Amino acid sequence: MSKNLTKRNEDYSKWYNELVVKADLAENSGVRGCMVIKPYGFAIWEKMQAELDRMFKETGHENAYFPLFIPKSYFSKEASHVDGFAKECAVVTHYRLKNAEDGSGIIVDEDAKLEEELIVRPTSETIIWDTYKKWVQSYRDLPLLINQWANVVRWEMRTRLFLRTAEFLWQEGHTAHATKKEAIAEAEQMQGVYANFAENFMAMPVIKGTKTESERFAGALETYAIEALMQDGKALQAGTSHFLGQNFAKAFDVKFTSKEGKQEYVWATSWGVSTRLMGALVMTHSDDRGLVLPPKLAPIQVVIVPIYKNEEQLQAVSDKVKPIILDLRAKGISVKFDDRDTYKPGWKFAEYELKGVPLRIAMGPRDIENGTVELARRDTLTKEIVSQENLVAVIENLLEEIQEGLFNKAKIYRDSHITEVDTFDEFKKVLESKGGFVSAHWDGTIETEDRIKELTKATIRCIPIEGKTEEGSCVFSGKPSLKRVLFAKAY
Amino acid sequence: MSKNLTKRNEDYSKWYNELVVKADLAENSGVRGCMVIKPYGFAIWEKMQAELDRMFKETGHENAYFPLFIPKSYFSKEASHVDGFAKECAVVTHYRLKNAEDGSGIIVDEDAKLEEELIVRPTSETIIWDTYKKWVQSYRDLPLLINQWANVVRWEMRTRLFLRTAEFLWQEGHTAHATKKEAIAEAEQMQGVYANFAENFMAMPVIKGTKTESERFAGALETYAIEALMQDGKALQAGTSHFLGQNFAKAFDVKFTSKEGKQEYVWATSWGVSTRLMGALVMTHSDDRGLVLPPKLAPIQVVIVPIYKNEEQLQAVSDKVKPIILDLRAKGISVKFDDRDTYKPGWKFAEYELKGVPLRIAMGPRDIENGTVELARRDTLTKEIVSQENLVAVIENLLEEIQEGLFNKAKIYRDSHITEVDTFDEFKKVLESKGGFVSAHWDGTIETEDRIKELTKATIRCIPIEGKTEEGSCVFSGKPSLKRVLFAKAY
Repeated sequence: MSKNLTKRNEDYSKWYNELVVKADLAENSGVRGCMVIKPYGFAIWEKMQAELDRMFKETGHENAYFPLFIPKSYFSKEASHVDGFAKECAVVTHYRLKNAEDGSGIIVDEDAKLEEELIVRPTSETIIWDTYKKWVQSYRDLPLLINQWANVVRWEMRTRLFLRTAEFLWQEGHTAHATKKEAIAEAEQMQGVYANFAENFMAMPVIKGTKTESERFAGALETYAIEALMQDGKALQAGTSHFLGQNFAKAFDVKFTSKEGKQEYVWATSWGVSTRLMGALVMTHSDDRGLVLPPKLAPIQVVIVPIYKNEEQLQAVSDKVKPIILDLRAKGISVKFDDRDTYKPGWKFAEYELKGVPLRIAMGPRDIENGTVELARRDTLTKEIVSQENLVAVIENLLEEIQEGLFNKAKIYRDSHITEVDTFDEFKKVLESKGGFVSAHWDGTIETEDRIKELTKATIRCIPIEGKTEEGSCVFSGKPSLKRVLFAKAY
Repeated sequence: MSKNLTKRNEDYSKWYNELVVKADLAENSGVRGCMVIKPYGFAIWEKMQAELDRMFKETGHENAYFPLFIPKSYFSKEASHVDGFAKECAVVTHYRLKNAEDGSGIIVDEDAKLEEELIVRPTSETIIWDTYKKWVQSYRDLPLLINQWANVVRWEMRTRLFLRTAEFLWQEGHTAHATKKEAIAEAEQMQGVYANFAENFMAMPVIKGTKTESERFAGALETYAIEALMQDGKALQAGTSHFLGQNFAKAFDVKFTSKEGKQEYVWATSWGVSTRLMGALVMTHSDDRGLVLPPKLAPIQVVIVPIYKNEEQLQAVSDKVKPIILDLRAKGISVKFDDRDTYKPGWKFAEYELKGVPLRIAMGPRDIENGTVELARRDTLTKEIVSQENLVAVIENLLEEIQEGLFNKAKIYRDSHITEVDTFDEFKKVLESKGGFVSAHWDGTIETEDRIKELTKATIRCIPIEGKTEEGSCVFSGKPSLKRVLFAKAY
């Protein structure tokens, strides 16, 4: 298999686009901005979904499903939300097509115009809070801890596979609480769940922080985010969790009778991650040879390629391989034995390298003689000859080592790309030459934030939660500041 | 908890509608024809999905994801498909809203009109075959065995929760094969998978058959269906699998180079089941007291309700219950311990009866003294006192017994509602008085089929695959026939 993959240092963006397509993750469809997620890409997404879903359920959440369409008027109910979401969206205006009278094909039936247009959901707060109104009467109905796995549509002008598509897949949690304190705790908890998932499954280190007012979700009082750093020095927002206050409860009139018999508005959160995580996963670990996948999310963890010249040799390898496959599967390790005779071993090696399979085993006649296999690591590209005897234990350990190694490598890169600066000249220089996060004092005003963005294209990615309090003066205005924030150019 | 559920023999349709809402399965939303699937209903759907997904993967299929939107022109490419699907559908015509200049709210931005309208997918053959064109070149690329879990929209005028909704959730398999024989085998295999799922998980007996030409999927050469019988004597089509011939391959120009080096069109199948199965599940087993769920699909298989007068008694029950819960969970049995102090035991009993939890355990101070529990079955409404000692084994056996019992009960009902008739008078009489399937000879013409439908509202549900060959004369026209077919009024 010939890869012909652009190198990262030649053109990172091109490398990404090519890799996503060549590794069979996704491709553009005939519908502008909408992607097809191919089976191999979808298998990774399914693994992500399964882990996240487990984590959501462990923290007491249940899944439900709400309508794809939202009546236009719903968006107008929450003032700041409408500006954020009801603009670039897919609008359903008719519900019927008909054959054109002139025989020219099918056309929209103007008699079937909707009285009120329907918006394809860009996010579901409005339709969900319209529903919660019916579900919440008493404190006994709270908290409502609900999640939805769904497709959403935002009419993006410039799209990129996984990172920014008109339609994407995501989960959106929407919770309702009796108290402000409980809602904030929930929003923080879900940020923690996302960080845990990013670090322990995606092997992608993230910084937990809050968003500035201008970067906040439309309708939120506080947005908690996890921010990751890609290999090109650009930041990527990987997940957000919002404390919505009583904004949606007031907009949709959702009140409950408290234990004390009083009528009160409900407190809300929402939180989501999307197929964008697939883009983050690709850009965090992969290299010029193709994908590098952390074992915990790899659809195939171990591939076994037989080396043979004739049917007899293939049979001998197959016989040796079968019990190994059974042993690996018994340990919950996913294995593929690729005995296709339509491709040569070298072609297969290149294919699984491109697809990021963490471990590759090759076994041929000489290995059978010697009781060995050749074991190759995708992350370090190293090979070694290993005895067949304790192969399963070796593989189990290696998969853990690779998972940890990928995280550590990404963390070293990330940590070495957080640069403290104290002057705006330095700020610009670091941003241009080194990239990554720039840790700087900021005076807390939208004006400064906007001005810096205009001048450098860098935005405040987050106000780190774990950042130390430290007095200083704003890198741009010189005004006093109590804490450094993280700037970066971002996806 | 007061149920106030209409009885089945008073008004079956009303009973169904009330039950779906009261048992927290689903409810209507603010969007016409679109439902909200509530957490309890969604938990059942998730169990269905998990089993089906496992079965699909065991038969070699992979999941993928294709766009929600389909350009209008795609539908015109397969002639019979367009009439069947491109009519009553949601049409996206614009991609932006804006604030009205007169301040009256948000309106559609006429400057953002799409050049070509997009249809919200009613089914995905067209967009998928447009994609397969890129994926298939050689016989080595075949078969393509792909499934998608997705939402689809068909603009139904009269909707009913789960049974017929504008938006519904489903899976759609779309496969591509090198030969006709292989494609037919695939379509038949998937009908078998659906029948297996219906009978062994939903405990719902089904008849496997093929559809008549007029009931076939738009674009199919053969439609394989599974047909179930509801308690009101009406039939319900629970799943279909289509052999599509080369229709879509020709419409989208999908060819491959065979082993012999020839260019050939690909052979296709598609197959699907939807949230309609939820309606079938409810109507097959439930009774005047509420849902009855087969254990294999019940989100809660066992509920434990403590009986107590004070905190001390509750503590004593909790202590006894904890190891039982652990033992049950270790066996993979889902248990809920409902120790809420906001509701009385009687209220809880009624709630879990309504929600169809297969087994209910009650434990109070006297049970602690005697080392017993009260164990109640939802299906038979019987109670018995059981020793705590071998409780887990008893429960394990009972869950199997209930699963089997529900299937057998439904099968006895179904089998006793297949009536052979040989005259049209009998045909009408059975249909009106007894309902169910009417097994009759048919002359094989669309005219007779249409006429019978006009006169009786009964349609040919299927030509049973396992039906015996038997010469006879058409129940309506008297013309010769070689086999009986099954008529029924249907959902």
